[in-house]
Amino acid sequence: MSNIAVVFSGCGVFDGSEIHESVLTLLALEENQCSYQCFAPDIQQHHVINHQTGEAMEETRNVLTESARICRGNIKNINEINIEEFDGLIFPGGFGAAKNLSNFAFKGKNCSIQADVLKTARAFIAADKPVGFICIAPAMIPLIYGKEITLTIGNDAETAEAINAMGGKHVDCPVDQIIEDKANKVVSTPAYMLAENLQQAASGIKQLVARMLKLSR
Amino acid sequence: MSNIAVVFSGCGVFDGSEIHESVLTLLALEENQCSYQCFAPDIQQHHVINHQTGEAMEETRNVLTESARICRGNIKNINEINIEEFDGLIFPGGFGAAKNLSNFAFKGKNCSIQADVLKTARAFIAADKPVGFICIAPAMIPLIYGKEITLTIGNDAETAEAINAMGGKHVDCPVDQIIEDKANKVVSTPAYMLAENLQQAASGIKQLVARMLKLSR
Repeated sequence: MSNIAVVFSGCGVFDGSEIHESVLTLLALEENQCSYQCFAPDIQQHHVINHQTGEAMEETRNVLTESARICRGNIKNINEINIEEFDGLIFPGGFGAAKNLSNFAFKGKNCSIQADVLKTARAFIAADKPVGFICIAPAMIPLIYGKEITLTIGNDAETAEAINAMGGKHVDCPVDQIIEDKANKVVSTPAYMLAENLQQAASGIKQLVARMLKLSR
Repeated sequence: MSNIAVVFSGCGVFDGSEIHESVLTLLALEENQCSYQCFAPDIQQHHVINHQTGEAMEETRNVLTESARICRGNIKNINEINIEEFDGLIFPGGFGAAKNLSNFAFKGKNCSIQADVLKTARAFIAADKPVGFICIAPAMIPLIYGKEITLTIGNDAETAEAINAMGGKHVDCPVDQIIEDKANKVVSTPAYMLAENLQQAASGIKQLVARMLKLSR
């Protein structure tokens, strides 16, 4: 049985992890008889967005604390991860991947990756373990891998251009499919970069999880 | 095609809607080719719980604003609901149902239901439309209906006793099944009152949604 680490970036599409993608990822792992542990970095969110109005709120929230909501409290600081226990790593999407785990939402091709996240992802790569990226999370791939990786964030031309400018190789992909960089065990899927509902997001996420688990064996 | 109203109580199992149950409810509605609209009351949460530590936090959050996170911002104030547009009503669980939509978590059998929630639920009842209650949400049934309704919250004896003291008729139920009060079109399922993972919660929620939709036609 595979054991997968899932990294959240808060709780809510506009300032953290996309909740549907996060839950669908955990559900797909369960449906594949796979165990998992959720993690998040212990850092402040970039900001807090009122999800009803889209406006920034005058408060601060912690990524680890808020991420705990998605997994009923069963979460660990990403700094505590023991790579040997896990067969793969998945990053669900949501703006949190581009605002908290990285600053791609603000800096584009000049972005950087949060230090704990970068260290963890590179440890999985060094151990030759597969990593999955959902929605906007693939924007982190070029900096994490430091070489040309084939990936997708769907078909948004401007985002794809910024990713390619960082050294990525973006390929358009429909919502119900995945893009795999076979040589490097990297799988990505557009989810809510394209999805209009839960079922569409689930269609790609199920494939990503199934492929990740094959690669992890 | 049925159109179902879903009422959230915040975003997170310990002070709002249980996120897995909420997402699984929306997914089950989609899988049944059913449209839906999410609602929540525009009130302050009873409190804010740090979901990693279980401790109360020194801040206030709004139920409607936080609920919006679960549905990517597509939410309405429950006061704006037009009952005629909907064929049924579902309350996912989480402590928010017992802390925000009612105060059952604090007052037990002496609890009351939040006024907007009570008014909305009673309008569905008056229109002879089915209502579904998940997890701890069935604790609201006796006060909402004002008569003996057969229901379940799983098998917790103390909670069942409080519900019966309010005039309910609790029946033990396994996680993968539902209890229906046929005369009154009320369906309930234990979900995370018993579930140990997403798949178990989904098994009962899928049945609740399917039955609700049959009753709504």
